[in-house]
Amino acid sequence: MNKFLAKVNSRIQEKKTFVCVGLDPDLEKLPEKFRRADEPILEFNKYIIAATQDLAACYKPNLAFYEMHGLAGLKALAATLRYIPAEIPVILDAKRGDIGNTSQAYAKAIFTEFGADAATLSPYMGEDSITPFLAYKENYSFVLCLTSNKGAQDFQKPELYKKVAAKIQGWQNTYGNCGAVVGATHPQEIRGLREIITEAFFLIPGVGAQGGELAGTVQAARNKQNSGFLINSSRGIIYADDPAAAAEKLRAEINKLIS
Amino acid sequence: MNKFLAKVNSRIQEKKTFVCVGLDPDLEKLPEKFRRADEPILEFNKYIIAATQDLAACYKPNLAFYEMHGLAGLKALAATLRYIPAEIPVILDAKRGDIGNTSQAYAKAIFTEFGADAATLSPYMGEDSITPFLAYKENYSFVLCLTSNKGAQDFQKPELYKKVAAKIQGWQNTYGNCGAVVGATHPQEIRGLREIITEAFFLIPGVGAQGGELAGTVQAARNKQNSGFLINSSRGIIYADDPAAAAEKLRAEINKLIS
Repeated sequence: MNKFLAKVNSRIQEKKTFVCVGLDPDLEKLPEKFRRADEPILEFNKYIIAATQDLAACYKPNLAFYEMHGLAGLKALAATLRYIPAEIPVILDAKRGDIGNTSQAYAKAIFTEFGADAATLSPYMGEDSITPFLAYKENYSFVLCLTSNKGAQDFQKPELYKKVAAKIQGWQNTYGNCGAVVGATHPQEIRGLREIITEAFFLIPGVGAQGGELAGTVQAARNKQNSGFLINSSRGIIYADDPAAAAEKLRAEINKLIS
Repeated sequence: MNKFLAKVNSRIQEKKTFVCVGLDPDLEKLPEKFRRADEPILEFNKYIIAATQDLAACYKPNLAFYEMHGLAGLKALAATLRYIPAEIPVILDAKRGDIGNTSQAYAKAIFTEFGADAATLSPYMGEDSITPFLAYKENYSFVLCLTSNKGAQDFQKPELYKKVAAKIQGWQNTYGNCGAVVGATHPQEIRGLREIITEAFFLIPGVGAQGGELAGTVQAARNKQNSGFLINSSRGIIYADDPAAAAEKLRAEINKLIS
């Protein structure tokens, strides 16, 4: 089994958690004591990871929040990735996608240079922009399908996201390491998507700050094995007064929904 | 007038060039003497820039080819950007796009940290993924519309790219700094796109290694001012035995087509 799936399935079985913790540190929102630290982002991430490592099914840093600080930010990301315990899978939220030889370069950046277990990809440029990532058989790729933001109305709805979903299922059939990003703001549509993408993992942002609906989303997203989904929370956990309590609350709510 | 447009229009008028030089260095393809250098990518880029700086309307480094080498690659990119003469605009080919607060972070990375004049963006996530970039009024954004690769058939055709084009024209009307990426492999469709996006710049990859058709593309892409397009060549120039001659040949071919 591929490395990402092996790790994430272990976390789900052993830790009973479907919670993906989004590591998206925004300097202006960090508590004062971290803003004054020598390495604010790294120190903050270490604090979040220490607090949540028994509760997280995976961690998901979004590259934007590191790139915005230039080389120092990317060094903080690399150090953060080294700090995450090896048994917890890492999804690098990158939303990449380019022509074939360029997607090959991005795949190397994410899976080899940063050493992430999984990535998020944007499907606009079609199959040859995605398959260079899927060629990394030990890694996993989540392709944007129906996103959590308002702009999902502009192009994805009413039909494009279903066409993308059908392609994702085809890539999953061929490569076995392709899932979808679907937003918790669309529980109705997720039910239909689970009929197209029957088994593969859904990465689900949009609960918390974005106002997604957890109960309907989990019911619609789970596969026949009562698994196959990861509920991401970034701001809802990392800026909570007690990040461990916020992660545990989400973990428990999800488990109640699938029991 | 916005900084990118001022620079690129000056280059077009003063240097009579519509050539965008793609700085996509692939270590394995570099001439032996650069591969043995202390900083292969930076040294190679300096050689290309020195050879083409009187012929380039702009430079377009694709972030993937730097990210694939981790922090060392991004340092080489930063040094490359410092080396490019200030009067030549830089498009950072990034194909970014994410939810609003994350696109804000990417825009800061590209326009402030790297200091690029322009960026390429992916529209899959819709308007709120694009407007944080357009809010940088001195910068310019090229949104993927109809790309040069085979995968353009998967989702962009037959209708999506026209819907995206209509949005691009709307964003251009509102912000004045939004163009489109259209591939030279679709000269017929570019004619229709120029009717939707009447004035804004088209960034056109796909000549050279990807087999696009130059004459039909230029005829279809130019706006009523006989301008409004940039023809990118990456591999066709940077790996030529004589990059200056290759850039000059492309420059002259384009000028002949619009005279």
